Amino acid sequence: MTDSAIILLSGGLDSSTVLAQARSQGKTCHALAFRYGQRHQFELQAARTVASALGAATFRTIEINLADVGGSALTAAIDVPKDRSETEMSSSIPVTYVPARNSIFVAYAIAVAEVLGAGEIIIGVNALDYSGYPDCRPEWVVAMQEVARLGTKAGVEGRPVKISAPLIHLKKAEIIALGMSLGVNYSLTHSCYDPSENGGACGRCDSCSLRRAGFAAAGVQDPTRYAFNAPA
Amino acid sequence: MTDSAIILLSGGLDSSTVLAQARSQGKTCHALAFRYGQRHQFELQAARTVASALGAATFRTIEINLADVGGSALTAAIDVPKDRSETEMSSSIPVTYVPARNSIFVAYAIAVAEVLGAGEIIIGVNALDYSGYPDCRPEWVVAMQEVARLGTKAGVEGRPVKISAPLIHLKKAEIIALGMSLGVNYSLTHSCYDPSENGGACGRCDSCSLRRAGFAAAGVQDPTRYAFNAPA
Repeated sequence: MTDSAIILLSGGLDSSTVLAQARSQGKTCHALAFRYGQRHQFELQAARTVASALGAATFRTIEINLADVGGSALTAAIDVPKDRSETEMSSSIPVTYVPARNSIFVAYAIAVAEVLGAGEIIIGVNALDYSGYPDCRPEWVVAMQEVARLGTKAGVEGRPVKISAPLIHLKKAEIIALGMSLGVNYSLTHSCYDPSENGGACGRCDSCSLRRAGFAAAGVQDPTRYAFNAPA
Repeated sequence: MTDSAIILLSGGLDSSTVLAQARSQGKTCHALAFRYGQRHQFELQAARTVASALGAATFRTIEINLADVGGSALTAAIDVPKDRSETEMSSSIPVTYVPARNSIFVAYAIAVAEVLGAGEIIIGVNALDYSGYPDCRPEWVVAMQEVARLGTKAGVEGRPVKISAPLIHLKKAEIIALGMSLGVNYSLTHSCYDPSENGGACGRCDSCSLRRAGFAAAGVQDPTRYAFNAPA
């Protein structure tokens, strides 16, 4: 085992925060981003910028085409929902769910960790403010840990990579407070599902709504660049 | 749930047999093959041919680059071992192990199954004759089943895709006998890790050794096209 870690880095608020946390703990961080057929490339640009800003040792973009699979508003011609209340957001799994996406990403990260000899995979999933995605829940993390333990050479040899989800029980405002204490520049991060052509955030999709509410609850000025004046 | 199934089809003996079995049970079969950076393309050609011969409803080749990950004789510049005894083959995890490969493939299949509404994913892994690969063992299948149950919308809604490994407790000779009873033309399948330039099997890698021994034990004439006279 080494103190190196694989960070799944989307370029959003959560994954940027776990990268900052791991760096503050002295870990050598290898950032992985995925070009999976998402509707826009701004989050990949943000991931690269954040990786550099926070001192990741390496940054890689992996191509895994999920647009061919379809079934999600993030990869197919399905409208991204806007202006939903917290109740609406938490009432069912949203159309922005990408089937098995995080399971595929973590499985790939398990492969990279095994080859690099990294002791840990760190993911920014969190379940408190937004329980809509099945592959952001603690029980899913446990399932992926079992895959790492039982499905790899490292696991059979008694040194499975550890799957860490340090934000899993934090609210969005707590994540932002943690990141601020670690010096994260959130203006570099991108969360919006449906940005404008120049990358400005819509302010109205579920991801923007949660992010905006998180900054408000944390008492931190929202540094997000919006495409237009976001609704109050 | 429907009676349609996703078949992970490598073009080898085992996955061709599970496709034949599923077809004999009247299942609508969607075959998935993966171009993952393997050293040769013969198995993908075989997969396409077998899918057609056995009446798969659809056949797709998915690109997931594992050569960039490395760490295996099947994707990197590491020699494929030859002429190993059964004892040697079963004594440790071989260099032909591709880190987390089957976990990545099944995670991707879970996504496809969810979008297609398929009730089952069928994989040809078997653990009896060849216990070297961690991601061919029953406990790994259980772990992937948990991922399907906990990490997908279908799972949360109480209809997780079923991960089936019908050959898991069969010996190679039993698999061949099953396939012969189902009319599988094994001359269309490709198992060799290190074929010649024209696709002939080497007869000496672990995969060839197990296949040859399987035909011998099943009392079935080996229809494999070898690159040269295979050792007796």
